[in-house]
Amino acid sequence: MKEKVKISNAVVKRLPIYRRYLEELIKDNVERISSNELSSLIGFTASQIRQDLNNFGGFGQQGYGYNVKGLYKEINTILGLDREYKMVIVGTGNLGQALANYSKYHKEGFPIVGMFDINPKIIGLRINDIEVMDSDLLVDFLRENHVDIGIITTDRAAAQSVADKLVEGRVRGIWNFATVDLKVPKSIPVENVHVTDTLNALVYHIIHNDQAEMPEAGTE
Amino acid sequence: MKEKVKISNAVVKRLPIYRRYLEELIKDNVERISSNELSSLIGFTASQIRQDLNNFGGFGQQGYGYNVKGLYKEINTILGLDREYKMVIVGTGNLGQALANYSKYHKEGFPIVGMFDINPKIIGLRINDIEVMDSDLLVDFLRENHVDIGIITTDRAAAQSVADKLVEGRVRGIWNFATVDLKVPKSIPVENVHVTDTLNALVYHIIHNDQAEMPEAGTE
Repeated sequence: MKEKVKISNAVVKRLPIYRRYLEELIKDNVERISSNELSSLIGFTASQIRQDLNNFGGFGQQGYGYNVKGLYKEINTILGLDREYKMVIVGTGNLGQALANYSKYHKEGFPIVGMFDINPKIIGLRINDIEVMDSDLLVDFLRENHVDIGIITTDRAAAQSVADKLVEGRVRGIWNFATVDLKVPKSIPVENVHVTDTLNALVYHIIHNDQAEMPEAGTE
Repeated sequence: MKEKVKISNAVVKRLPIYRRYLEELIKDNVERISSNELSSLIGFTASQIRQDLNNFGGFGQQGYGYNVKGLYKEINTILGLDREYKMVIVGTGNLGQALANYSKYHKEGFPIVGMFDINPKIIGLRINDIEVMDSDLLVDFLRENHVDIGIITTDRAAAQSVADKLVEGRVRGIWNFATVDLKVPKSIPVENVHVTDTLNALVYHIIHNDQAEMPEAGTE
């Protein structure tokens, strides 16, 4: 019987990073890797890596390292990437289209099964072979097709009402690109990708670097 | 003389969120707001909000609340949003085009002054009135035009070599959308937007929610 895995949010955010590097290692036919080698690849400390990977069982053996394929497979299982998640995109602007055209999602278990918009000129078009439907049909479509994930790529003004429809249509999670903090029931996880917030953070770090280079004048 | 502001990374990530809400409040002609009112809007606790905003001076007064415009202006200054940053986009796929077409950046002090690609079929095109140039010209262009921020929207394989060129061209910061952890000098901040990592995290939370609803069977 499998133990229930409880992992902190910080580790959950690092798992996809490990996964990416392991994927590359598999492509390069690397079978084993030590935490020190992983450290020099990824940039996390070796002790951080051992601590993270110990969270969910002992894949590593002293003097042997990690079994790359085994670890990759286990991380996939923990991240739930061993099954399929149906997604819909609501909002067919540039970002919605960019996501629709990113065919890797289809291949990797995240098929986009529908796109929705309120603009009559766009409804009926096909983007990367996905039909754009009227947002009025969203709730029914979600329920009939047992959609797992709703992607919000509308503008800010529309985002909350779209989220309400996604909840009504019983999606299991929301991937939100609109720069709005959505209010949804706690049972439905929301992952925000607030792109412009990260630009603001970048600029802060640029400024801060500049300041660090200036001579300190009477710090308090 | 202004005191030097040192703020933790966590607070830096929250400042753009405060900024967005304050922008909305200004649009709605709200002049003052208490930490409790902000709390019910944003979802952070009132004490978190007071602690965050106390980091950079006393805008709030007991029984009066925060001056919305003053606080907004101050956050803009701290985030460095009171000046202009020239940006280039390297990689003109769907995501690069989506960013180029997002005209808000132009209006808000982030003009995109050039786009670059290696594909001869794309070089010479104009996207949202921005010329696509040959990536071979990137370093010279960056130096001649004193570009502040390089945006990487290439595939994984090309991302590191693009980052090297951005560094050579003396950009002040890199906004990286390629799913690669770049190696650049410490003096150049990198902000990663690893979109698919956030999808993986979302799926983990979906799975985890499901598990939480299952009856616990012999937890250790």
